[in-house]
Amino acid sequence: MTELADLAEGIRADPAAHRVLTGDRPTGPLHLGHYFGSLRNRVHLQRLGVEMFLVIPDYQVITDRDLADRLAEHTENLVVDYLATGIDADRATIFTHSSVPALNQLLLPFLSLVSVAELHRNPTVKDEIAHSSQAAVNGLMLTYPVHQAADILFCKAGLVPVGKDQLPHLEVARTVARRFNERYPHPDGTPVFPRPRALLSAAPLLLGTDGGKMSKSRGNSVPLAADEDTTARLLKGAKTDADRRITYDPVGRPEVSNLLLLAGLCQDRAPEELAEEIGDGGAAALKRTVTEAVNEHLRPIRARRAELAADRGHIRQVLRTGSERANAIADATLTEVRAVMGSL
Amino acid sequence: MTELADLAEGIRADPAAHRVLTGDRPTGPLHLGHYFGSLRNRVHLQRLGVEMFLVIPDYQVITDRDLADRLAEHTENLVVDYLATGIDADRATIFTHSSVPALNQLLLPFLSLVSVAELHRNPTVKDEIAHSSQAAVNGLMLTYPVHQAADILFCKAGLVPVGKDQLPHLEVARTVARRFNERYPHPDGTPVFPRPRALLSAAPLLLGTDGGKMSKSRGNSVPLAADEDTTARLLKGAKTDADRRITYDPVGRPEVSNLLLLAGLCQDRAPEELAEEIGDGGAAALKRTVTEAVNEHLRPIRARRAELAADRGHIRQVLRTGSERANAIADATLTEVRAVMGSL
Repeated sequence: MTELADLAEGIRADPAAHRVLTGDRPTGPLHLGHYFGSLRNRVHLQRLGVEMFLVIPDYQVITDRDLADRLAEHTENLVVDYLATGIDADRATIFTHSSVPALNQLLLPFLSLVSVAELHRNPTVKDEIAHSSQAAVNGLMLTYPVHQAADILFCKAGLVPVGKDQLPHLEVARTVARRFNERYPHPDGTPVFPRPRALLSAAPLLLGTDGGKMSKSRGNSVPLAADEDTTARLLKGAKTDADRRITYDPVGRPEVSNLLLLAGLCQDRAPEELAEEIGDGGAAALKRTVTEAVNEHLRPIRARRAELAADRGHIRQVLRTGSERANAIADATLTEVRAVMGSL
Repeated sequence: MTELADLAEGIRADPAAHRVLTGDRPTGPLHLGHYFGSLRNRVHLQRLGVEMFLVIPDYQVITDRDLADRLAEHTENLVVDYLATGIDADRATIFTHSSVPALNQLLLPFLSLVSVAELHRNPTVKDEIAHSSQAAVNGLMLTYPVHQAADILFCKAGLVPVGKDQLPHLEVARTVARRFNERYPHPDGTPVFPRPRALLSAAPLLLGTDGGKMSKSRGNSVPLAADEDTTARLLKGAKTDADRRITYDPVGRPEVSNLLLLAGLCQDRAPEELAEEIGDGGAAALKRTVTEAVNEHLRPIRARRAELAADRGHIRQVLRTGSERANAIADATLTEVRAVMGSL
């Protein structure tokens, strides 16, 4: 695991070891939780000089639902969100994994390195199975950590930004890399795959407007693409409490504190300071403050978003270019893999 | 299921529906069991006009062993055997599946159509797991019937020559095709995948020289590539019985009958007739007859084999050409698959 603060020096010394692989499922619009939880961080990483690979894992959508609904639309909207929040498409590689066959082929040799018992033991898979809407667990769900390993390893990513709940997935990728390198040593002694490291996010966790976990599917989030009135309405409906005095107390008053945190993130200020200013204004004043802070912070992003969304041809071109780059890298990695495996 | 005899008419009427997919694992030299059990049949099918796809499933080698030993050599030798026994490389497509990424990518959507319970229930997988040399069953072993479905469906094969023990695998491919077509209907109403049919072999089963199942790994078979002296030595060591009178009685005298059957196959004669001729000559006369019959039958094949084996450049070119053709077909199928899945 690597802290963001230690990174700048490392990136300058060895940029190849700091290639980053990350991405988002194309299941709906990104929201404030994604923005403060990961998007901003990625832009920061890119400014530090890392080479960024953004995979849109479209096949993973069918691990836990039967149909991939409005997939092309969701995919293009993700690209719009990425570019609007500051990802530089000339330097980042944005691609859907279904468009990179050589990446997907890596699933086959990788599956031979992981036992069926290990697949069944993966805690994240267990959890996803428990929350799946499907009657029976399908083979893609069971094997998807190994497919994620292929996502990470095809581009030899050195760093993978993760939440704590995703550490078991990264561990699969690390295990696959280690076992592959041991079983198929390169004649010149250089292992084919680096062992990727976790980059644990330092970003605070935002709750949804209902005080629960923020989630696309629960309707408790503010989409980046929402307009200012919708944002106001969503935040007006946020859960608070009856105490008119606003204080920052994440344990005792999670909902009020969450709104203070959100406003603080938007204005780059401490939530305690904002609570002080609102004082006895109650939930209404708090919500006005948060709404204004969010809308003001997102205004330039939303303006860029609207411009980008209007030019679908450009967005598709970004995906095509990303896919070409990803295919070139995946083909090279697969050639290396087949060579050390003895022409497989 | 389709009997070979009914085929000729069907092929003339609808050649596309009679595309055949078959192949052999690159784990060692082919022997007489392969020759009379499947190779001859393939040549016959090709002469009837079917389009033949011969996959050399190299990734399947690592389902039940850690390393793919001498893989390139075994792969090239299979091609030599195919061409020597009469497969026409200009009309057949011979390829390793590791060289066709778009074929392998089909594993991902297909895995989403099969439940984990179904994977575990597959009787052939159960049996392979029971006989595996590996300590733990790996993920590639569990999923390989679905990978075989991709082998069969990428080229939209209509017919798959199988033994009875492989029917459950073919059933997986049929199930995957049906579920895919139901879940992702084509806008013009034509299903993306045909449902492949089994072509059950009418060839009699040859036993090994020890009277057990003939197998590459048991050393109880006569390789196609063996020279005449080696063939004589191997057949001289074959198990028989003490009765000097030679009779064809597969139930009561399986080893003697097996040798009669082999000689009969080589000379296109009934084993009973050969038994009659040998009469009271005993095992020694029987073995002389069989050895002569085998060596005579294989002489032209072995001569072609030697010529072909001397020109590795040509063999590699056959594989390259086959791989190019298979890639073009797999790319086209994958494009169709992604289109009906909504850009996946």
